[in-house]
Amino acid sequence: MVIKCKAAVAWEAGKPLCIEEVEVAPPKAHEVRVQIIATALCHTDAHPINPKFKEALFPVILGHEGAGIVESVGPGVTSFKPGDKVIPLYMAQCGKCKFCLSPLTNFCTKLSLVKNPIVDQELMEDKTSRFTCKGKPIYHFMGTSTFTQYTVVSDINLAKIDDDANLERVCLLGCGFSTGYGAAINTAKVTPGSTCAIFGLGGVGLSAIMGCKVAGASRIIAIDINSEKFTKAKALGATDCLNPRNLHKPIQEVIIEMTKGGVDFALDCAGGPEAMRAALDCTTAGWGTCTFIGVDSEIRGLTISPVELIMGRTINGTCFGGWKSIDSIPKLVTDYKNKIFDLDILVTHTLPFDKINEAFDLMNQGKSIRIVLTF
Amino acid sequence: MVIKCKAAVAWEAGKPLCIEEVEVAPPKAHEVRVQIIATALCHTDAHPINPKFKEALFPVILGHEGAGIVESVGPGVTSFKPGDKVIPLYMAQCGKCKFCLSPLTNFCTKLSLVKNPIVDQELMEDKTSRFTCKGKPIYHFMGTSTFTQYTVVSDINLAKIDDDANLERVCLLGCGFSTGYGAAINTAKVTPGSTCAIFGLGGVGLSAIMGCKVAGASRIIAIDINSEKFTKAKALGATDCLNPRNLHKPIQEVIIEMTKGGVDFALDCAGGPEAMRAALDCTTAGWGTCTFIGVDSEIRGLTISPVELIMGRTINGTCFGGWKSIDSIPKLVTDYKNKIFDLDILVTHTLPFDKINEAFDLMNQGKSIRIVLTF
Ligand SMILES: [Zn+2]
Ligand SMILES: [Zn+2]
Ligand SMILES: [Zn+2]
Ligand SMILES: [Zn+2]
Repeated sequence: MVIKCKAAVAWEAGKPLCIEEVEVAPPKAHEVRVQIIATALCHTDAHPINPKFKEALFPVILGHEGAGIVESVGPGVTSFKPGDKVIPLYMAQCGKCKFCLSPLTNFCTKLSLVKNPIVDQELMEDKTSRFTCKGKPIYHFMGTSTFTQYTVVSDINLAKIDDDANLERVCLLGCGFSTGYGAAINTAKVTPGSTCAIFGLGGVGLSAIMGCKVAGASRIIAIDINSEKFTKAKALGATDCLNPRNLHKPIQEVIIEMTKGGVDFALDCAGGPEAMRAALDCTTAGWGTCTFIGVDSEIRGLTISPVELIMGRTINGTCFGGWKSIDSIPKLVTDYKNKIFDLDILVTHTLPFDKINEAFDLMNQGKSIRIVLTF
Repeated sequence: MVIKCKAAVAWEAGKPLCIEEVEVAPPKAHEVRVQIIATALCHTDAHPINPKFKEALFPVILGHEGAGIVESVGPGVTSFKPGDKVIPLYMAQCGKCKFCLSPLTNFCTKLSLVKNPIVDQELMEDKTSRFTCKGKPIYHFMGTSTFTQYTVVSDINLAKIDDDANLERVCLLGCGFSTGYGAAINTAKVTPGSTCAIFGLGGVGLSAIMGCKVAGASRIIAIDINSEKFTKAKALGATDCLNPRNLHKPIQEVIIEMTKGGVDFALDCAGGPEAMRAALDCTTAGWGTCTFIGVDSEIRGLTISPVELIMGRTINGTCFGGWKSIDSIPKLVTDYKNKIFDLDILVTHTLPFDKINEAFDLMNQGKSIRIVLTF
């Protein structure tokens, strides 16, 4: 049965989203229709509607940090039933590909992010959409499309979570929190007693601080060009906060002096060549690890010379914090309930879904960490 | 007592070395005077006398792949006595610095390679030289200076080895072999059953093949622009040999097709932006590791974008193959004796020391893998 509901449709780049009535088709084989209860915004949602990126397909329903309740399931779905609380996952876990079968990675061939992070998963597996509006098919986004009261996702893009989970908070596990927190724990593999530097204190960076703290780091240096971010960074465990704009020397030199030779782990959650360069430079010779979170896939990058690496440095990167998504998200929900980490501090605004354009403005102006929209 | 002996002195860049009689002063505190029995040539010896690199100090006695016998020891030396067989080590191991005390690295603060790989360790710890020739002090090189019948090294730059070691072979452990072999074992950490690609089949690259083989790699793809290198590569365990000049597609594309998605480990022993790029590109998403051996510290490098890393790749690098030098070289000498790996295959020429300029010509023309000079 088709459901008619409210959704935010992006009809074209550079324009506000439109709250529309859309039709959501029933789930087909191995698909699940989910009622979204809460969804947050992430910078990745702003890319496709930014006119300077030309890759997006329109019209589209964006959104990939949501949480909801299963409304119905298609044929062959065995892991979900109506009423289950769930988190849609842009990071698929098919369970069958060579990546899913390896303990070394959370990558899955069903996520063809390597080709193009913008237009990926814009349709369901059968190359059709479950959304229509005013007679037109509407593209999906990242396999999730959470800016709608009802969405349809593949059952390999969905995690079942505890019945008592607070959906207005655990929606953040769908992207930003898991990315930063996991980058510290799974990718950088931060060790007890270590010194860490976190570049960029948005939602991902603050979550990386939580990851460093949980991993036992004894010194956490938080860096941002906006000093207003430092209050939350300190509340989460940052021991030092630095604003490169207030320093008389390059940030990497300051960090190297502070730490007598550099940090054990640098995590770049800012993106861009300058932060990448500073993050690599500030790691210690011998064993320094520099992890690129790459939330924004910059076209420009970092030029490295072998001599920077033969001193024993490692550079790596992460997608979705290295978490195997279906396996890990339910455990992270439990960890949140057990107060292993804090999601509340990341939520700066909670707004009704209809105010989604206001929410985008707040995010684009750097006035928010995470904004949760509720239906 | 000063020893008068034969040495090859580089008086200036761009000129052949001169076989001269030099005076070698007795070892001072924590120094050891060593009679060099055999020394090989390495490309790093050709750098300082290449006019396009301007960093070297002249006159200098080059050489860093030698083996010999302790002639005398200075005050405070407890680990060596006259008659001991030894290998001089450009990679110091002081045993006291934060790097030496960490199991995570073979770096040592006594090797200030990070500042400048060319002019490092040009004098002894007291900032004087032990060599004079025609009344002039002669600079040391890399803490080793093996192109002389007698040299003086610090006791943290020297490994004692088995009395029955074949010095005409184990001299290779002083640089090239250990670098390539260790890069596979210690830095890339090649795993059993894995697929590896080795770029550049000189002494370091062939040694990396041996490392991959010993580590249990099941497929070893060897790449060089000179197909004459393939015979030895295959003899050492390469399963596939590719010459990029004979291919109609970029080498990385060919490797990705051959391996259905890329190799687990790529080791760049060639240096230069093109090989670095190909080495990174040909690693598999999910867990591919790209190790830069960086034998030549190219000024140009590799420009990476975060999206190349968020798929789960790791980039790292190595100096001296990650071996803690004093601890590891004696064990490698034993492994050679036990035929765990082959050094003979690397030695293409054995020449008398007086033919050192002929040896440089052979090396510079790519006609040799390793040339051993004997006194
Ligand atoms: Zn996101
Ligand atoms: Zn999979
Ligand atoms: Zn040391
Ligand atoms: Zn060398």
